[in-house]
Amino acid sequence: MSEVYAARRTRLRERCNAGGSAAALVSRPANVRYLAGAAPRGAVLLLGSTEEILLCGEPPDDRPTTGRPDEALRLKILPGTGTGNGTDAAVAATGIAAAQGADSLAVEEHHLTVARHRAMRSSAPALRLADLGGAVEQLRVVKDEEEISCLRIGAEITDQALGELLESILVGRTERHLALELERRLVDHGADGPAFPTSVGTGPNSGRPGHRPTDRRVEEGDFLSVCLGATYRGYRCEIGRTFVIGTSPADWQIELYDLVFAAQRAGREALVPGAGHRDVDRAARQVLDSAGYGENLPARTGHGVGLEIDEDPQLTPAAMGKLDACVPVTVEPGVHLPGRGGVRIDDTLVVRPEADGGPELLTITTKELLAL
Amino acid sequence: MSEVYAARRTRLRERCNAGGSAAALVSRPANVRYLAGAAPRGAVLLLGSTEEILLCGEPPDDRPTTGRPDEALRLKILPGTGTGNGTDAAVAATGIAAAQGADSLAVEEHHLTVARHRAMRSSAPALRLADLGGAVEQLRVVKDEEEISCLRIGAEITDQALGELLESILVGRTERHLALELERRLVDHGADGPAFPTSVGTGPNSGRPGHRPTDRRVEEGDFLSVCLGATYRGYRCEIGRTFVIGTSPADWQIELYDLVFAAQRAGREALVPGAGHRDVDRAARQVLDSAGYGENLPARTGHGVGLEIDEDPQLTPAAMGKLDACVPVTVEPGVHLPGRGGVRIDDTLVVRPEADGGPELLTITTKELLAL
Repeated sequence: MSEVYAARRTRLRERCNAGGSAAALVSRPANVRYLAGAAPRGAVLLLGSTEEILLCGEPPDDRPTTGRPDEALRLKILPGTGTGNGTDAAVAATGIAAAQGADSLAVEEHHLTVARHRAMRSSAPALRLADLGGAVEQLRVVKDEEEISCLRIGAEITDQALGELLESILVGRTERHLALELERRLVDHGADGPAFPTSVGTGPNSGRPGHRPTDRRVEEGDFLSVCLGATYRGYRCEIGRTFVIGTSPADWQIELYDLVFAAQRAGREALVPGAGHRDVDRAARQVLDSAGYGENLPARTGHGVGLEIDEDPQLTPAAMGKLDACVPVTVEPGVHLPGRGGVRIDDTLVVRPEADGGPELLTITTKELLAL
Repeated sequence: MSEVYAARRTRLRERCNAGGSAAALVSRPANVRYLAGAAPRGAVLLLGSTEEILLCGEPPDDRPTTGRPDEALRLKILPGTGTGNGTDAAVAATGIAAAQGADSLAVEEHHLTVARHRAMRSSAPALRLADLGGAVEQLRVVKDEEEISCLRIGAEITDQALGELLESILVGRTERHLALELERRLVDHGADGPAFPTSVGTGPNSGRPGHRPTDRRVEEGDFLSVCLGATYRGYRCEIGRTFVIGTSPADWQIELYDLVFAAQRAGREALVPGAGHRDVDRAARQVLDSAGYGENLPARTGHGVGLEIDEDPQLTPAAMGKLDACVPVTVEPGVHLPGRGGVRIDDTLVVRPEADGGPELLTITTKELLAL
């Protein structure tokens, strides 16, 4: 694996050099992990002109879930970092960069706070701090097969956890308990943990994006929507499904379900290399729009996933940019009718060329309308 | 409750005005909740010269766990805020402050990123951005009885969850499963959720501060240390205990336990209004120090708790400042012997005057060395 991390750092250095900085400081945890193999508490990665150093507040643990730091990096432990009363790793790294003779250091201005940035400036007044921008995030968009394999395992775990829940009695249980049980099952099946707080919505809460579980109990006739995902070796995936409770769904439930299903399928089918991000969004959105639900749709139809649950690309009406192969994204349209509930269907897929069979569906739980 | 929030905002305004700013923008989520009653996703609070506005990315939900926004505030919803593809609430608020005629706006430079701060500056070039610093955090240090009551209920829930675990069979179960079970029990008993990731350490992992649970199973003769806490209506408490597995603790285990117990008691007894933060740390630390464990002690003996699990004051050797009454803190010394394990004892207490009976212990689970 060491070569993988070294190659990523080389690509970043090339971008930095092109931007006029010989040295870079990476502080956003997912970016540190991507380039260094691990991001122990308070860690920052200095790509200096003479040496690459991972500075962190505690020794890395050696578990596969948290990753292991690339052995090619020098490791520097600064006790207390990140607890608010130790040496700040970013400030320490700035001093080292200056001592190495760098005249400019590219930093992540979208992650560093104003106060921290000022402390870095004061610690090395002669060093020019430049902006690294989202350079590491851009490198992270296209995944290698190792990364996709972690997402695939995470999706399998997620499908298992969801499948087991569907075999149990649901009526009478609260949203909070169902969410907790799903999270326990994720860990039972080998997840590092949930990729994000599990959402379970019943009845009027169903179909609400990001709904936080309440003490409402599942009732006969409800829509039940769940959204969950496993983290596996740092990689986060997502699945969302909507079910109906009881033997006979109402007509409005069947109609709404079919509609969201059609929108989600249109979005999935639009996932081809070279397609615009906004085109994928439009494919799904126009199905809901033309059925009269255009008003209250969420701002986006999907997003990238990886070391974070919400990465680039963003599938929105105004998004610029085109899809590449090997980019994992969610496709998750939904409709929520205030007071009645709604439907949300969410998959994680990897963009693949037609020649390779088109988009690879990672979350394979059925999307038929199940009556539970 | 509305008067409570209004009074807090008035106190903040007084500090701002003293600092030369007529308007303030609060963005750190716990600070927003403290002043506004709730902090929906992406929310910021503008204390403008003519109006107070809570700007957020989604409508607040109406559950007691997340809080309700003070009705005296104007509520402004900016769809998509906080998802990375909507209007940034802080930028929008900056524009409003400028339109209200403010010439200076105090912002939280320790929370805002450099990039966000720049976007705010660009949106209102004539407005001077000043630094609010930790003004809200300072207001939050001393709690009112309503806040302490939330902490007290959270501590009761935590004691219950821990007590139930101790009645079950522990040998053969993994750290991860014990941690998950504790978190489930917290929610069962009415917690909003865990206050921080539950730590369970067995054998050589016992007594490690912040240990992340592994798949190691509990064995006969192990030390077992757990650290957990409930969040109740936003308020977070913490308890840590160490047990021994099996009927007869080894001599070294009894000695180490007695020592850490003595250190923790010394720390608790030092909690009187007017005592220096460093004096509390020293009281606990010197017990361990004089027994020869001074080298590898953690950087601090305890910290404040409240809407965040790690607040001011910090109980460290170099901390300035003195304790006030009605400040809740943890006292959590510990010793970890690499390869063997260790002991950690952690309580949440509220500083009270002697006349009121001295420090109020919120986490009342026994601190005898239990052999389980």
